Amino acid sequence: MPHIALPEGLPGIRGAMAFRPETAKPLNELVEILLRGPHTLTPGERELIATYVSSLNDCHYCQSIHGAIAAAHLNGDEDLVKRVKADFQHADISDKLKALLVIAAKVQKDGKRVRARDVAYARSQGATDLEIHDTVLIAAAFCMYNRYVDGLGTTQPRDEAMYRERGKMVAREGYISVSKTYLAAEVVAR
Amino acid sequence: MPHIALPEGLPGIRGAMAFRPETAKPLNELVEILLRGPHTLTPGERELIATYVSSLNDCHYCQSIHGAIAAAHLNGDEDLVKRVKADFQHADISDKLKALLVIAAKVQKDGKRVRARDVAYARSQGATDLEIHDTVLIAAAFCMYNRYVDGLGTTQPRDEAMYRERGKMVAREGYISVSKTYLAAEVVAR
Repeated sequence: MPHIALPEGLPGIRGAMAFRPETAKPLNELVEILLRGPHTLTPGERELIATYVSSLNDCHYCQSIHGAIAAAHLNGDEDLVKRVKADFQHADISDKLKALLVIAAKVQKDGKRVRARDVAYARSQGATDLEIHDTVLIAAAFCMYNRYVDGLGTTQPRDEAMYRERGKMVAREGYISVSKTYLAAEVVAR
Repeated sequence: MPHIALPEGLPGIRGAMAFRPETAKPLNELVEILLRGPHTLTPGERELIATYVSSLNDCHYCQSIHGAIAAAHLNGDEDLVKRVKADFQHADISDKLKALLVIAAKVQKDGKRVRARDVAYARSQGATDLEIHDTVLIAAAFCMYNRYVDGLGTTQPRDEAMYRERGKMVAREGYISVSKTYLAAEVVAR
């Protein structure tokens, strides 16, 4: 049961966002820019970073939904998502993405763990400053989203089919668009 | 030295935001709503939560600037800020704020550490659902801001007077207003 009176029928972050639409707006804008905005990393690659960090933070809802969105972007390849979570160094992803996941894992623990040599290695694999910046911010942002979802005790269904269906929808329509269905257009200050 | 080519002369998160104004916008909007928007917790109380979480994450820049903003909101009481960071249970703050800081400290480690009894206790001290929600989100958000600032290796001056002056300005003018000076109005996709 959630720790506070969240609207029913909206699992994970959706209930929290419906409870507080004022903060939902920038939270949705941030994830839309980071994971779906114009970029040299594909949406699938960025969703893999988000999924991996969420799995390190052991957030069931976030790793399930972002894993499903990643798979939807990656031609439905759910096995690849599982392999990235379990052992990304041996997954079928680029060396550049592996180097970025090393940075993301360090940020998940503590930003100060990122070393100049980690960044130099990512650069040697073709990563740009913007890709490195966004990897750090995606990892940092999911340390927020994960704690937000878990810290309120939100409901986190175990039904994989639910995540798969919603993942396809988010991959197709985007975060801001799908959240309009449960966020009131008019924000009332409480 | 920062890990990527951040604009010079802008310490901490300011350099990171100037590098990527697209993401700076929602990041600034979120902190403005959480720490300065209309609320039953004072700006000083909310800045104390942000400062405390930043100190737990050992982020020098964030704990210094938010500590300075908190002090500016609290009639310049820098000692109170120091006492909250060192041992908030014996600081001169309300029992409600102490109960919220207990929740914030748990969120800083892992949202799943927050227990129903922590929330029930906060409620018994007068905390509302919105105050509990915002405490969880402030703590979660500073786990992001701290990792963002540290993970890029931003410059983090040790000059206390700099933070004190800037803290007064942010307390007076707000986050969005002060960042307009270094964020380009026009966002160019890279």
